[in-house]
Amino acid sequence: MSQARFDVLAVGNAIVDVLSPATDDFLSAEGIAKNAMTLIDEERARTLYERMQPGKEASGGSAANTVAGIASLGGKAAYIGKVANDQLGDIFTHDIRAIGVHFDTPALKEGPATARCLINVTPDAHRSMSTFLGAAALVTEDDVDAGAEALKASEIIYLEGYLFDREEAKRAYVAAAETAAAEGRRTALTLSDVFCVERHRASFRHLVANHIDILLANEAELLALYETGDFDTALAAVRQDVAIAAVTRSEKGAVITSGEDTVTVPAEPVKQLVDTTGAGDLFAAGFLLGLAQGRPLAEAGKMGAISAAEIISHYGARPECSLKVLAEKSGIAFD
Amino acid sequence: MSQARFDVLAVGNAIVDVLSPATDDFLSAEGIAKNAMTLIDEERARTLYERMQPGKEASGGSAANTVAGIASLGGKAAYIGKVANDQLGDIFTHDIRAIGVHFDTPALKEGPATARCLINVTPDAHRSMSTFLGAAALVTEDDVDAGAEALKASEIIYLEGYLFDREEAKRAYVAAAETAAAEGRRTALTLSDVFCVERHRASFRHLVANHIDILLANEAELLALYETGDFDTALAAVRQDVAIAAVTRSEKGAVITSGEDTVTVPAEPVKQLVDTTGAGDLFAAGFLLGLAQGRPLAEAGKMGAISAAEIISHYGARPECSLKVLAEKSGIAFD
Repeated sequence: MSQARFDVLAVGNAIVDVLSPATDDFLSAEGIAKNAMTLIDEERARTLYERMQPGKEASGGSAANTVAGIASLGGKAAYIGKVANDQLGDIFTHDIRAIGVHFDTPALKEGPATARCLINVTPDAHRSMSTFLGAAALVTEDDVDAGAEALKASEIIYLEGYLFDREEAKRAYVAAAETAAAEGRRTALTLSDVFCVERHRASFRHLVANHIDILLANEAELLALYETGDFDTALAAVRQDVAIAAVTRSEKGAVITSGEDTVTVPAEPVKQLVDTTGAGDLFAAGFLLGLAQGRPLAEAGKMGAISAAEIISHYGARPECSLKVLAEKSGIAFD
Repeated sequence: MSQARFDVLAVGNAIVDVLSPATDDFLSAEGIAKNAMTLIDEERARTLYERMQPGKEASGGSAANTVAGIASLGGKAAYIGKVANDQLGDIFTHDIRAIGVHFDTPALKEGPATARCLINVTPDAHRSMSTFLGAAALVTEDDVDAGAEALKASEIIYLEGYLFDREEAKRAYVAAAETAAAEGRRTALTLSDVFCVERHRASFRHLVANHIDILLANEAELLALYETGDFDTALAAVRQDVAIAAVTRSEKGAVITSGEDTVTVPAEPVKQLVDTTGAGDLFAAGFLLGLAQGRPLAEAGKMGAISAAEIISHYGARPECSLKVLAEKSGIAFD
C-alpha cells in the first residue's frame, strides 16, 4: 500500500442545486415529501420548477458537498461523478475544481442534461428535494476505471447511497469498493435517504455487510436499514456489519460506534438555523477527514459536527468560509 | 392615455450573475476595475471564471433586478430583455416570472449564450463585475415592438444605460422612449456605470436632454455625465435636463431634485453590509414605484432607501423577503 495522495475519493451524483423558499402548503399541494429526496423525471422537473419561487443555483450533490467540505478543512479530495456537456455541467465542474478537488470524469457528450435538484426550503429551515438525475445517473464502471489511479491513491473511498437508484451505477460502486479493498484502502458509504434505503434495502444490506468499513447514516436511515424502531437494536446490528458507524441525530449530535466503543458527539451550537441542506454531507466531510488523518473517533466526530454547524447557518450546501479555520478555533490541531 | 396596467416596464440586459468571493489581490492580478462593470468577451469570461472561487448563480441584470424589486414591493412590472435558448436563459426566465413580472421577449434561437456577469465580491462587500453580454446585447426594435402593448400600458418606462454598449440596442431604447412619450408615459433612465457614461457620454447627454423625464445615477456617474468634479454644478445641470433626478450617494443616502425642489433622503440603517450588488437597482425599484403611485419625492426616495438596504444585507441582487412588508414596517402605507 503506497502513501495516500488523497484523504478521500468520493463517488456520487454530480448535481446542481436550485434552492427556493417554499411554504408547507406548497409542499402539500405539490405532493412533495418533506425532508426527503424524491426522484423526478425531466417533465416533472419542468412543471415543478415553473411553480417554484425564484431560486439560487449552486453546485450540490451529496458526496460532492462532502469533498468540498474536506477541501475546506484542508484535506486532499478527489471526486468521480457525471455531468453533461452543458452550462450547469460547467458550473459543477468549475465549483468543485475551484476549491482544489481533483475531478476529471469526462462529461457526457450526448443524452440527458446535468442533474438538477429542486430544493424547497421551508421557513423551519428544512429542505425537501426533488431530483432529476439526468447525466448523473449515467456514471459507469468506465468512469471508475478512468479514476482508478486516484481511487487507489485515496485513504478512504466514499460512496453515496443515492447512486443505488441506477443498476449501472451500483455496479460502478461495487467495482470501486473492490478496487479500494484490493489496495488495502477503507470504503465508506452513506445511506443518503430513508426512502432510498426503503427502495434498495436488500442491496444496501449486502453491500454494508460485505464491502463497507465505515457507515454513515442518520437515525431514520439506520432504523430503516435494519427494519427496527429501536435505536439500540439498530446500533447492535450495525456493529456486526462494519468496523465504524457514525449515526447523526440532528440537534442531538451523533453516535459513533466501533466494536466495543461507543462515542457520543454533541451538536455544535448554531447562531441561526437557516437551511439544513448538506448537514449530513458536511458531517461526513469532517468525520471522514478525521479518520483519514488517523484521529480518535471523538475528534473526527467533532470535526464533523463543526462542519455541519457551518453549513446549516446559511442557504446552500457548500462551505462559505474556511472550515479549517473554524475547526482550529474549536481546538482541532492540524499539522 | 389609458389606465396603466403596469407601474413600470423596464428594458435591460437580461443577465445571470455568478457571485464569488475574491480578494483585492485577485482583482489586481486580473486587472479588474473595482466597483465597476467591465465588458468582456466569451473567451475572457471562460478564462476569468476558471480562476475564480466557487460561485453561486442567480438571476441579475440591473433593470431586471429593479422590476423584481418593484414586484416585491407589490407593484406591477413588465420587462423586455433577451436571453438565449439555454439553461441560464431558462433560469432567468423562471426567476423573473416567478415573482410576477410580465416577461415575454422571445429567447434568441441561434447565436451567443445567455449573458453572464462574473461578480467578484471583496471582503469590504464591494462588487466588481465582468460581463459577457452574449444574447442580452441582441435586444432589438423588434423586441420592443413585440412588447409594445405592455409598454404603452406602463406608467413609467425604465431604460438601463448599460444597453448603450450596442448600437442596435440603443435604437431599441430610443424607439421605446418615443412610444412611451406618444402615449403620455414618463421615461426613466439609469446611467448604470461610470465607465459606461465615459464610453457613451454624447449619446447619453442627447438622450437625457431630449427623451428622459426621470434620471437615476450615483454621484460619480452624474459627475461624469456633466464632466465636472463639483456636485452642485452637476445638480444644476441635471435640473435643466430632466423633470426629476435622483442621485444616490452610498451611505450618505440620496439627493432628489425636481425643478426648484431638492430633497435629501438618508440611507436606511443596515445590520450587516454583505454585498453591495444591486444597491442602485433596488433604490430605483422603490423610487420608481413610489413615483408611479404618485407619492411625494421624499416618500418615493424612502421606498428606494428601504429596498437598497435589504439588498446589501445579503449576497445577491434580488430581494430575499417581501419588500412591501419591510416598507410597511417603516411606515409606508399601501392601498
